Amino acid sequence: MPLMKSWVESANAPDHPFPLNNLPYGVFSHAGTEERCGVAIGDMILDMASAEDAGLVKVADEPVFDLPYWNDFMDLGSEAWTALRARLIALLAEGSSERNAVEPHLVPMAEADLHMPIAVSEYTDFYAGRHHAFNVGTMFRGPENALPPNWLHIPIGYNGRASSVVVSGTDIRRPWGQLKSPDHDLPAFLPCRRFDIELEMGAIVGTSSDGPISVQEADDNIFGYVLLNDWSARDIQAWEYQPLGPFQAKATATSISPWIVTKAALEPFRTETPEREFELLEHIKDVGPMLYDIDLSVSMAPEGQEATTIARTNYNQMYYSAPQQLAHHSTSGCPMNVGDLLGSGTISGPTKPERGSLLELSWGGKEPLTLDTGETRTFIEDGDTLTLSGEAKGDGYTIGFGTCVGTVLPALEDPYKR
Amino acid sequence: MPLMKSWVESANAPDHPFPLNNLPYGVFSHAGTEERCGVAIGDMILDMASAEDAGLVKVADEPVFDLPYWNDFMDLGSEAWTALRARLIALLAEGSSERNAVEPHLVPMAEADLHMPIAVSEYTDFYAGRHHAFNVGTMFRGPENALPPNWLHIPIGYNGRASSVVVSGTDIRRPWGQLKSPDHDLPAFLPCRRFDIELEMGAIVGTSSDGPISVQEADDNIFGYVLLNDWSARDIQAWEYQPLGPFQAKATATSISPWIVTKAALEPFRTETPEREFELLEHIKDVGPMLYDIDLSVSMAPEGQEATTIARTNYNQMYYSAPQQLAHHSTSGCPMNVGDLLGSGTISGPTKPERGSLLELSWGGKEPLTLDTGETRTFIEDGDTLTLSGEAKGDGYTIGFGTCVGTVLPALEDPYKR
Repeated sequence: MPLMKSWVESANAPDHPFPLNNLPYGVFSHAGTEERCGVAIGDMILDMASAEDAGLVKVADEPVFDLPYWNDFMDLGSEAWTALRARLIALLAEGSSERNAVEPHLVPMAEADLHMPIAVSEYTDFYAGRHHAFNVGTMFRGPENALPPNWLHIPIGYNGRASSVVVSGTDIRRPWGQLKSPDHDLPAFLPCRRFDIELEMGAIVGTSSDGPISVQEADDNIFGYVLLNDWSARDIQAWEYQPLGPFQAKATATSISPWIVTKAALEPFRTETPEREFELLEHIKDVGPMLYDIDLSVSMAPEGQEATTIARTNYNQMYYSAPQQLAHHSTSGCPMNVGDLLGSGTISGPTKPERGSLLELSWGGKEPLTLDTGETRTFIEDGDTLTLSGEAKGDGYTIGFGTCVGTVLPALEDPYKR
Repeated sequence: MPLMKSWVESANAPDHPFPLNNLPYGVFSHAGTEERCGVAIGDMILDMASAEDAGLVKVADEPVFDLPYWNDFMDLGSEAWTALRARLIALLAEGSSERNAVEPHLVPMAEADLHMPIAVSEYTDFYAGRHHAFNVGTMFRGPENALPPNWLHIPIGYNGRASSVVVSGTDIRRPWGQLKSPDHDLPAFLPCRRFDIELEMGAIVGTSSDGPISVQEADDNIFGYVLLNDWSARDIQAWEYQPLGPFQAKATATSISPWIVTKAALEPFRTETPEREFELLEHIKDVGPMLYDIDLSVSMAPEGQEATTIARTNYNQMYYSAPQQLAHHSTSGCPMNVGDLLGSGTISGPTKPERGSLLELSWGGKEPLTLDTGETRTFIEDGDTLTLSGEAKGDGYTIGFGTCVGTVLPALEDPYKR
């Protein structure tokens, strides 16, 4: 599929993240307005609340866009998703007869504040990138025992904390936590010393289910995708994670990019999961090309300095796709809800510069990275800004995710003094 | 504190679970009404929506009781909690001058349906009963390595699935899941064969926080307690839980009792946590008697047969209290919200008949239980009804939790056929 041209000129540049082919969904405020739904087109945002109010888009009897989340729209179901996309393309395409009616509802993105695009119902994080699991397992247990016995049969995941999900741009406060230094017999309560990122994609559930669903149903139920940074306190994690998994190490924050890229926009980029060592059981078996070819990168910028790209990888490196994760998630009868967020797990490729966490990039802190500024890093230092980026490259156009950014602030001097 | 007498006569029996001293909060419907807040007093429920409408109780400018959850009331803060309790006592005490005005708002509990008392924001389950952790650890790793190194220093917990929390009385469908038999090399997708209960107490967070909170603040933020049954698929759990903890094994359902017993009602029953092997670090140290003396029991009834009490224990067997769990939960800066539910972890005492799960009672299935009916059990069979009960015994009165009941239905023949 080639570039679809829009009368919003900035959207037509081949490397612009938000062409008419994309039309990602977000929540914004502008010049003192309440938070409301918007759609990115080039350098502009279409104010969906005012467009709905003006009768340009109508998806339900009640207004659903004058809200600070897309949940109500998602809940209308996939026919409404398809209809809205078609309507938006009609309104914004080059030559649209409704250009004059639409133009007053465009707001420059540069003047807007972006907010969380959804109300997160619950958040689940997976561990479904093979290279990441192999790297981490090798550091902890050696290469021969790197993957747990279950890993090649089910997408391993754990429930995260929805309350800690924040939108890109939110500063991240280095946490305190209980941890035990290898050279101490007893734990202490200290600021985290090994604060890390995890480069992930987040899948957003747009249709509720109540009982086991197939991989095809799961794919149908996914609304779209965002970039996701699963901030991780490695020293807290090392002390707490046995036997019930990570808890406070992952509860400080998880950042997501502000624009939900819909499944429809990603359709041309579908790609196969990797070859299977063991055939997957029926309930999680691939039903077609389940992943997407999305280039991903991580950059790190010390305070006031330029950024260095520290990793480049691709979403096609996942072993399990989001529909397979969602299908697995439902096997127990677990009700899944509109607004549930599923983290893919850290995405690493096979070679060193493709690793999606500092834990892997610095090999547990033993091999410091050298940034373009000359500074070195094992884990994150105070003031560092970490940026995830993602884009799918089409024929003369780009489906961009924008960025997922966070700056790490120093730990509070005394976390109990307020 | 002695029995406080009510003009609702049934409330004055010394073994009645709902005397004036208790006044637990629930949600009910009756004769076709919408779900609404209610307060149990003896055999009756005070309809809080109609009482509020009639001006008998007023806690905020907007009505908060004509809702299917207590979240809005909880969110008013602890002064409102104290004021409401005082007002209810005034209305319902023997000799109240308002008896005639209140009486029309009472509904017989026997005619009402009980529903979830709160909208669960997020659900966290702990592993903070020492005898349970020791028993399970002994089965898996032997007695010398039973407790993980962190166990005596932090309340180990994991995030559960809020969407799976159901009210007592809801039937529980035996789940399917991926599991691996010890005599097979590869996993299979099958109905769970080792379906179990966990006897727990649930603590309900009534005040939000955003950053680390002290144990005292955590205690202040807890609204009340319920019984909680953390249904567990042991064979699914054994296969999935390494390395990130239980996931689908715990996602079929968690049942809670319908009546929230407030902290105020439990105040006379405060008791100390057990002696510490290691002094706890400051952020989770006891700040007074942190537990409650609450007798707990579990009964099992095969389909159509009488129930056998299979376990009796006490909430005072916990190693970590709910305020300590909540304080730990907040250390990372994790935002905690009104409606968060914290499971205590399975409560087992030191001797065999005090064990709070079938896994422990049957020692991993090796020592079947004999019920009073003559039948034997290792794990739950289809049609079995499991009932948790709890009560604190005061001076001539009882603070009852009522029961938390669930009947296990057979697994679906084909979970993907609907």
